[in-house]
Amino acid sequence: MSHEELLAGRTAHMESNAIREILKVTAQPGVISLAGGIPAPESFPVDAIARFTSVILQRYGGRAFQYDLTEGFRPLREALVPFLARKGVKTSPDGVLVTSGSQGALDALGKILVSRGDRVAVEAPTYLGALSAFNPYGPEYVELATDEEGVIPESLEERLNEAPVKLIYLVPTFQNPSGRTLSLERRAKIADIIIRHNALVIEDDPYNDLRYRGEALPALHSWAPDNIIYLGTFSKIFAPGVRVGFAVAPATISRWMVLAKQGTDLHTGTFNQALCAEYLQSGEVDRQIPRVVELYRPRFHAMLRALEEHFPPWVHWSNPDGGMFVWAESSLELDLLDIYHRAVSRNVAYVPGTFFYATPGTHLNTMRLNFTMPDEQHIARAVATLAEVLLEAGEGAKIGQGL
Amino acid sequence: MSHEELLAGRTAHMESNAIREILKVTAQPGVISLAGGIPAPESFPVDAIARFTSVILQRYGGRAFQYDLTEGFRPLREALVPFLARKGVKTSPDGVLVTSGSQGALDALGKILVSRGDRVAVEAPTYLGALSAFNPYGPEYVELATDEEGVIPESLEERLNEAPVKLIYLVPTFQNPSGRTLSLERRAKIADIIIRHNALVIEDDPYNDLRYRGEALPALHSWAPDNIIYLGTFSKIFAPGVRVGFAVAPATISRWMVLAKQGTDLHTGTFNQALCAEYLQSGEVDRQIPRVVELYRPRFHAMLRALEEHFPPWVHWSNPDGGMFVWAESSLELDLLDIYHRAVSRNVAYVPGTFFYATPGTHLNTMRLNFTMPDEQHIARAVATLAEVLLEAGEGAKIGQGL
Repeated sequence: MSHEELLAGRTAHMESNAIREILKVTAQPGVISLAGGIPAPESFPVDAIARFTSVILQRYGGRAFQYDLTEGFRPLREALVPFLARKGVKTSPDGVLVTSGSQGALDALGKILVSRGDRVAVEAPTYLGALSAFNPYGPEYVELATDEEGVIPESLEERLNEAPVKLIYLVPTFQNPSGRTLSLERRAKIADIIIRHNALVIEDDPYNDLRYRGEALPALHSWAPDNIIYLGTFSKIFAPGVRVGFAVAPATISRWMVLAKQGTDLHTGTFNQALCAEYLQSGEVDRQIPRVVELYRPRFHAMLRALEEHFPPWVHWSNPDGGMFVWAESSLELDLLDIYHRAVSRNVAYVPGTFFYATPGTHLNTMRLNFTMPDEQHIARAVATLAEVLLEAGEGAKIGQGL
Repeated sequence: MSHEELLAGRTAHMESNAIREILKVTAQPGVISLAGGIPAPESFPVDAIARFTSVILQRYGGRAFQYDLTEGFRPLREALVPFLARKGVKTSPDGVLVTSGSQGALDALGKILVSRGDRVAVEAPTYLGALSAFNPYGPEYVELATDEEGVIPESLEERLNEAPVKLIYLVPTFQNPSGRTLSLERRAKIADIIIRHNALVIEDDPYNDLRYRGEALPALHSWAPDNIIYLGTFSKIFAPGVRVGFAVAPATISRWMVLAKQGTDLHTGTFNQALCAEYLQSGEVDRQIPRVVELYRPRFHAMLRALEEHFPPWVHWSNPDGGMFVWAESSLELDLLDIYHRAVSRNVAYVPGTFFYATPGTHLNTMRLNFTMPDEQHIARAVATLAEVLLEAGEGAKIGQGL
């Protein structure tokens, strides 16, 4: 039988995932990948996990492998309260909803909030997993202008003035893909705008703890808890393979998220949640985060140094204080999706930036560079090679553009 | 701010979950619950899990905690092929998609297939988690008549003749809630019907291995692989808290399920999948299934004996060969949702059967009884008490109905 004709209308909104296809080559031997969005596996506390496992089996026995509440494993919800408080997110165990990664929260939010044609505001560029979660429900995306300090408050206000916006999706700290952080002043301004406009914001905060310099900023949530759904995850500090995230949302939203999650996966893995609870309760979190930061910091500096040293003057890049990414833009009209293949043939991969925009096919002159997977030497070599590829392409473009 | 007004239209289709509310009392001390749909925690192979954990940490190290492919962890997909073959489901590692419980597969299928108003055929009664997965997409349910041998083929054919049916959802073996099994003759007939009508069936098969008597039947999938999405899970044989299920679907459907899953949870927990792979590869599966069956078989017989001994002659019940449930129907017009509260006040809980129908508020004279959580003594006591409650209510009803 033919199955294509059975697909629901919404299925057409799911991307056939060009990005996945083009990134397949990054797994080829010899390729240095600056394309990754994943933590270095040497950062995972494997020994601690072995210890946690015996503690959990002893303490909970079968309960760690039984069905559990959709809202989350109680010991984890309790342990998250002080962890969240450090970030300026005040809540109680009942206020915390455990999700299957942040993606699980984004999925539930898309499901309960987004109707076809609803305006959803996202940063330009934005995190592409959020788009995948919302796409099936057919939103109309409106893009928010950003600069070195993150989303520009006036751009948000303008969007809110022109027509109702159902939902605003922001990654205020060490954004994926740009690495940029919303400044303290702007946080206050954004909070003021969303309160005045009665607007609902998702504050997605996966990279918060990966700070290599500067001072931590309070979560946007601390200014406007009634207007914000705060999302966090264990993927970047503990291990992504446990697939555990968490959400703090206004009570009504939270109640409906639970209902949506019940139909989606019943609940997040019990043992996984017990591992995360133990990670927090045992204090391992306070030993592990500095270890991860010390692992990534030299890679971060190696990336910035190599860009400074090798990249042509007509490429500009972001200046993050943490996270996993640097964002680069060419001021020459280069198609970095096209150039990607040339880079790969020279054994260097990155992610063409066009994939991070809600409007497909735009901003072809951008790229995302990851610095957490390869070590310092590989980063230096990859950036040098990439610079050569860009310079060659740039010469061609300058001639073509009569410069 | 008020959040209710932000909800998408589809949110109204998600049940506010009356069943969840009424079942809360089952956790009260002293209550013997025949309401559960969950395995006995003493069935979980906790010692084996401890062994598997050290094997996994040694063999895979950080890889067991890293992001992995949406399709599933390769060693698990490979190990599932021979396990599926025993059930008559022929596939290859590439043909297996790992999901976050069977619920994850149902969610993905709802998302990619069901448009508002699409006719979705379900057994009457049916598994309520399937309804939760499909409800957000606004299907129109059509109910299939069932009897002691499962769904009645003529009822299916009639439904297919009267108007197009997008999807047929069946639990052919030890059905939840009825415990009934589709007979061999009917499997062949149903397969013939769906092939002739070019219809798509979800064969949800979580209870297959929990057989207490009689001979195993091949999966419906073995007759019509091109028309069937076969779903299985580790929840009933290994442990539900790992949240690992699996699907074998026609290639097009499978490809879109992967895309949907990517937006829902990226992938199922890596370590969890490694545990399941080890459970299969180590041969533990072949020691564990007989242990679970030996644990449940005396409970199963205790339930049937107690029903025979205590239940009034105007209550009829199903005669399962396996699974976790017996289904009972009163031929007097009793409201077993109402009587539920009387039973709970006598410290016995069950699930009122009305919750298992796609048309709410119907079949109030039915109930589902679980026999895997309480032990033999508790089952005998609970059924005796329940019989008393039913007899009292029955006397009232007989008077009311002039019998």
